[in-house]
Amino acid sequence: MFKKILIANRGEIAIRVMRACKELDVSTVAVYSEADSNALFAKYADEAYCIGPPPSSKSYLNIDAIIDVAIKAGAEAIHPGYGFLSENSKFASACEKAGIKFIGPSSEVIEKMGSKITARSAMIEAGVPVVPGDGRAVEDDATAIEIGESIGYPLMVKASAGGGGIGMKVVYTPEELTRALSSIRNVAASTFGDSTVFIEKYLEEPRHIEIQILADSHGNCLYLGDRECSIQRRHQKLIEEAPSPIMTPELRKDMGEAAVKAAKTIGYVNAGTVEFLYSKGDYYFLEVNTRLQVEHGVTELVTGIDIVKQQLRVACDEKLPFTQDDIEIRGSAIECRINAEDPLNDFAPSPGKIRRYRSAGGPGVRVDSGVHMGYVIPPFYDSMISKLCVWGSDREEAIARMKRALYEYVVVGVKTNIPFHRTVLSIDAFVKGDLTTHFIDDHNVLSALEKVAVSDSERCATLSSALEDRNKKIAAISTAVGSYINAAKRHDMKGSDE
Amino acid sequence: MFKKILIANRGEIAIRVMRACKELDVSTVAVYSEADSNALFAKYADEAYCIGPPPSSKSYLNIDAIIDVAIKAGAEAIHPGYGFLSENSKFASACEKAGIKFIGPSSEVIEKMGSKITARSAMIEAGVPVVPGDGRAVEDDATAIEIGESIGYPLMVKASAGGGGIGMKVVYTPEELTRALSSIRNVAASTFGDSTVFIEKYLEEPRHIEIQILADSHGNCLYLGDRECSIQRRHQKLIEEAPSPIMTPELRKDMGEAAVKAAKTIGYVNAGTVEFLYSKGDYYFLEVNTRLQVEHGVTELVTGIDIVKQQLRVACDEKLPFTQDDIEIRGSAIECRINAEDPLNDFAPSPGKIRRYRSAGGPGVRVDSGVHMGYVIPPFYDSMISKLCVWGSDREEAIARMKRALYEYVVVGVKTNIPFHRTVLSIDAFVKGDLTTHFIDDHNVLSALEKVAVSDSERCATLSSALEDRNKKIAAISTAVGSYINAAKRHDMKGSDE
Repeated sequence: MFKKILIANRGEIAIRVMRACKELDVSTVAVYSEADSNALFAKYADEAYCIGPPPSSKSYLNIDAIIDVAIKAGAEAIHPGYGFLSENSKFASACEKAGIKFIGPSSEVIEKMGSKITARSAMIEAGVPVVPGDGRAVEDDATAIEIGESIGYPLMVKASAGGGGIGMKVVYTPEELTRALSSIRNVAASTFGDSTVFIEKYLEEPRHIEIQILADSHGNCLYLGDRECSIQRRHQKLIEEAPSPIMTPELRKDMGEAAVKAAKTIGYVNAGTVEFLYSKGDYYFLEVNTRLQVEHGVTELVTGIDIVKQQLRVACDEKLPFTQDDIEIRGSAIECRINAEDPLNDFAPSPGKIRRYRSAGGPGVRVDSGVHMGYVIPPFYDSMISKLCVWGSDREEAIARMKRALYEYVVVGVKTNIPFHRTVLSIDAFVKGDLTTHFIDDHNVLSALEKVAVSDSERCATLSSALEDRNKKIAAISTAVGSYINAAKRHDMKGSDE
Repeated sequence: MFKKILIANRGEIAIRVMRACKELDVSTVAVYSEADSNALFAKYADEAYCIGPPPSSKSYLNIDAIIDVAIKAGAEAIHPGYGFLSENSKFASACEKAGIKFIGPSSEVIEKMGSKITARSAMIEAGVPVVPGDGRAVEDDATAIEIGESIGYPLMVKASAGGGGIGMKVVYTPEELTRALSSIRNVAASTFGDSTVFIEKYLEEPRHIEIQILADSHGNCLYLGDRECSIQRRHQKLIEEAPSPIMTPELRKDMGEAAVKAAKTIGYVNAGTVEFLYSKGDYYFLEVNTRLQVEHGVTELVTGIDIVKQQLRVACDEKLPFTQDDIEIRGSAIECRINAEDPLNDFAPSPGKIRRYRSAGGPGVRVDSGVHMGYVIPPFYDSMISKLCVWGSDREEAIARMKRALYEYVVVGVKTNIPFHRTVLSIDAFVKGDLTTHFIDDHNVLSALEKVAVSDSERCATLSSALEDRNKKIAAISTAVGSYINAAKRHDMKGSDE
């Protein structure tokens, strides 16, 4: 096992990785931006070094600075977490060149999977079902319209280099198609430095279901079950669960084996996720995430496997300590991402000081947090401040437990999406497991949330006016008592006078 | 299921029960003493009523006041938690008379098991092994010495009504025996109102191993595996784990079936614990705890069963939803009781204000706490403020995780036994699972802890003196800079003068 590693990330995921390190007796090196000098993760590490000011381009994305710290601190490996440099093949390659182990797949695999077009053809080669469409880069509008006709509308226009919900658009007509082509090209060029786009069928009522895989450098590759991540806003996940409510042992085996086949075809080593869209009984390859996912915790809860520890082990060329037959799914787990944001104001981030903080706890509750009372959330980074996960013996218990944990979780000082999660969890369709990636729109979650907010503020108004009434009464009584006392005093004085 | 229940307890266990209620959609009624009006559990409940001042005799032990609140609030049942009235057959009987369901076994079973002599003979009847000894009440010294001779020294003198580590003494000679008889009689009479004592063989190198049982009112009774609770101070548990490091599937089946036989013999319904001493390959019945145990969480972590919910279900005459074959032990769990106390000052309680509080979290960590930042621990109650539990895929992972969680857990303002737990967990014999109820003495835990405290204070002294040095330097530099500035000023002034 490594003696010392560097964690090239911040917040809860930096702490998550350090927790695994602490349990494995591996020393940790944190790197932090000037905006994070008081952050918990920097204090949690055995050593911590400032690598520059915000924004991220000057610190968390500064490959040279990070590798420099790793070398000077004597770190043997770097864990990239998720986001930032975690899927940056140049970073993985720079690590490889510096003789530092990058904890993840090789830079070539990252590069290959970073192109959705290359990934798509690799999957076709591996016999994994892909979304109906055309796997070629679309060069001009005429070809695009031709391709569109042959696939049939609606279509999804996608940037090949896209990710994080950026660089994709649904179109219903040839006019929308040509407009989308140019807008996505522009976005993709400016965001990812690559304007290549391609066209797929847009699936209706899709569910997002993904398979967690884990591969060692000795040719062993396993699937650790599935996750459903359909509850999304702007293609970003908010609630994830394991297993999917529609999962059967047969479907899991089928999708799991497809994911393993995909991973083996591309020579995947370390933990990764093969994402699928599921629609009307069929599943289709979406993309490979060549890193730890935010939502890995729900898989840990149902399998009992510490995925981060396994990442470290396979990065040390250890063999996986279990086989596919050992992987057993027990119960049901749900994660709510706790974001400092205002869902009713277009999910705008809500940075600022956490004035009160109390974690949820008790049976079946897991909190991965990067914050605490008094912590000031800086405005420069992702709005996710913690992850609230629960485990239940079945999905019904997990939902009841999540509601209970959301009741307990106190974050005061910034706006959070805790009321949003409460609203989603009380919608019948969620309880029944009828999920699609359009759930939030289809079930008018935001207007339901608005109603709760309105009724809350109405209740506050009623209470306020009751309080005012009471204050008036107290004032009246005080006045009465006061004049009584004065009268008594005058009487006394008179008495003493007389 | 009940619509509303009252929880006749305080602190973390009151919250534990309310958590189960919230998940089952059962309304909760808290009762609290004047010392607890700001406590978390009173706020967590849907309704809360003050039942008197401290000490407990005037509030948490006030049967009439509690039943009165239950009736007025319309609670259908009462959960007694542990301690206080939980094993008080008069309370259970008062509930029964008031038409309120007592969530636990019947008052007759509680009464029977409250007498260690009666319990012992019931176990002999059921064919469960008991500690070699004499099950009769000892009336006079001559008989006692005779019994002692026949059993063989060392002996354990026990109060029949004893509990919580009070009313027991080891003796090695007839002289010690006669002295112990009179002292235990006095203690037992004043503490339990019953001076009956009896004599058993004192087992050497005993381990405390107990079996969690769960029985419904339809004749089904199961064992939910075992717990090892050998790490104790003054016969009070500090660290518990499930399963015991020495447990084998065969021994678990054997002890589990003995516990179930015992429970069935006495007509036990609801959750309970059959405690055994284990010594040199044999196990011996110790006592039945007719209530939820503090350490039930470790069993929940390895079985996935929510014991409190099952208590509520069987109290509603529901059938157990699983059979013995469904009970599966997965991984390993450890609990450290976090007490506000000073182990180096004879474990003296350390009440007061918690100035900083940060919970442990992340994978495999469960915290059951009744406190928070700013909370003032009152001096009237048990010193336990929270329970830190961890789960690991095996015992090695559980130990590493507990060490990591203890590193994270921050409680400032009162003394706690967190450093004590750290010390125990790093002792080789603990890691190897070589445990006995004398572990703390045998392994000089307190002197090891003292060394850590001394080295900590030495480090502090070194740091302080370094700091002082630095301060002197800063002062010197300041003076130098100051005189430079003054000189410059004078120069300037001169300049302006010239």
